[in-house]
Amino acid sequence: MKFIEISQPGGSEVLKVSHQDIPSIGNDEVLIGVKAAGVNRPDILQRQGKYPMPAGVTNVPGLEVAGIIESIGKDVVGFSVGDQVCALTNGGGYAEYCAVPFTQVLPMPKNLSFMEAAAIPETFFTVWANLFDLGRASKDDVVLIHGGASGIGSTALILCKALGIKAISTVGQDDKVNVLSHYGKIINYKKADFEKEVLSLTKGKGVDVILDIVGAPYFNKNMTLLKKDGRLVIIGYMGGQVVERFDLQQLMLKRATITGSTMRGRSAEEKHIIAKELVAKVWPLIESGECKPMIYQVFDFNDVKKAHEALDKGDHIGKVVLTLET
Amino acid sequence: MKFIEISQPGGSEVLKVSHQDIPSIGNDEVLIGVKAAGVNRPDILQRQGKYPMPAGVTNVPGLEVAGIIESIGKDVVGFSVGDQVCALTNGGGYAEYCAVPFTQVLPMPKNLSFMEAAAIPETFFTVWANLFDLGRASKDDVVLIHGGASGIGSTALILCKALGIKAISTVGQDDKVNVLSHYGKIINYKKADFEKEVLSLTKGKGVDVILDIVGAPYFNKNMTLLKKDGRLVIIGYMGGQVVERFDLQQLMLKRATITGSTMRGRSAEEKHIIAKELVAKVWPLIESGECKPMIYQVFDFNDVKKAHEALDKGDHIGKVVLTLET
Repeated sequence: MKFIEISQPGGSEVLKVSHQDIPSIGNDEVLIGVKAAGVNRPDILQRQGKYPMPAGVTNVPGLEVAGIIESIGKDVVGFSVGDQVCALTNGGGYAEYCAVPFTQVLPMPKNLSFMEAAAIPETFFTVWANLFDLGRASKDDVVLIHGGASGIGSTALILCKALGIKAISTVGQDDKVNVLSHYGKIINYKKADFEKEVLSLTKGKGVDVILDIVGAPYFNKNMTLLKKDGRLVIIGYMGGQVVERFDLQQLMLKRATITGSTMRGRSAEEKHIIAKELVAKVWPLIESGECKPMIYQVFDFNDVKKAHEALDKGDHIGKVVLTLET
Repeated sequence: MKFIEISQPGGSEVLKVSHQDIPSIGNDEVLIGVKAAGVNRPDILQRQGKYPMPAGVTNVPGLEVAGIIESIGKDVVGFSVGDQVCALTNGGGYAEYCAVPFTQVLPMPKNLSFMEAAAIPETFFTVWANLFDLGRASKDDVVLIHGGASGIGSTALILCKALGIKAISTVGQDDKVNVLSHYGKIINYKKADFEKEVLSLTKGKGVDVILDIVGAPYFNKNMTLLKKDGRLVIIGYMGGQVVERFDLQQLMLKRATITGSTMRGRSAEEKHIIAKELVAKVWPLIESGECKPMIYQVFDFNDVKKAHEALDKGDHIGKVVLTLET
């Protein structure tokens, strides 16, 4: 089968279309004939050699796919050969075939294409697990989402809108402000200080939950913006990994909670719990049309370099997807 | 009535026995004739001018008392004049009479003296709210308690023992190791690196919850010692308020939670919830003798300077209490 190889750490030029055997599946796995694969920030970090890879997973990048089940292991429950599905993989999505534990496989929402369905798992699992589970965002909360145009950010905005939660978001370009204003109050952080803007939008009250992918440079502004009992959920550190000033008195006086997670560090069991919550609570919103993944650009599988360059460039609003359909 | 005045910020010499009117009570308050008052770390900080005082509270120090109800406001439920009680105050405990919202008043455990009962509220409320509510410590957890000889630390050790939770604790003197070893594994941090010792005691696994009063200097060791999904609960920063290196990747990979709180920042409603939990879950353990406050020294009310000096010195193991009984 064809797959994408990271020949060495580096820029998009290190991505090569190569060939290797179709993966064998374990008893609890399905083999998916991949029709489309999502491109995500961790893939970029993996390409650059900067992603802390969990033990025992394939080196082939790709954390989400949509396609058709080609074969199933003997312990698989709830899926059959021929089913149209999407899945959060443990890696290996950039390939014609991908083996995935059945507990991370979801039925494809009825009204979506393979390309749309491939754009869902990674960001929907991530946002659900972090903003809603860890961050406990709920109906009366005001939520601040940094990087609103990213895959994660756009998914968070879409889900908040569908669930009736007020969202504020930061982006770095005016066209992103325009596209995303449907989903919440959008701030161009290059034109205005987001701390002041958020305080102004909330009449000085701040926010209940912050979902952050920027990390160290935003940390103290985030802490200032949290209300009492506020939750700061950190799922990336694109701006810096190490905070150089963290005031413990502020943490205590606000009774704030700081937490974060990675998706790849979760066990199959944990991912299964999230998958079931998504099917129960989010799939109905997708199938009723209240919520739809935001796709920025679709590239042919062989043009994977261009797909990575699109993310590297940072102009995207929503998801970048690879298609294997011809 | 007699009360203790902080004449100006400073050492124990600024504490003066003075006189002022007995406080009037609100509709939801009781007036307690104080028989004993606990001495706590925040009182020391208040004396030094370092405690961030909440708005609208008395300047008279003293966060916990035991005594007899002298009068009650018209909205008070569940208490009568003459009841023996202990209470978490909003300040004003260093006095012959103290007005307290009835929601922060608890019946005095049957088998305790006033001096013992006055040693309970502040640390039991604090440990319950932080180690058990915020930190979610439960039966299968291993808990690390810094400053095990402090009022908070000894209370945490006592409660873990009574609830069947494994505890490890740090102290700075060998006599503290000896006294506290009944309650858990005690490390003299001056003789051994606590990080190495905790890893050795846990076979490299680390701990589920850390209750910390030291703050910045322990922060990174604490983060290293947390297991996956571990909780670091910060309720003091005796060693330093500002952390100068906080690694967000480590937070994410461990899916750790960092939180903390102050007791005085809690609303009457929140304190009432804790009070009810204590009466339901901890009072039976006290009345059955499975759990008892650890009292280090009792001073006469007029010797308040000596009581503060005992805390300033730091040799105490457990609580320091003022008595007004003659």
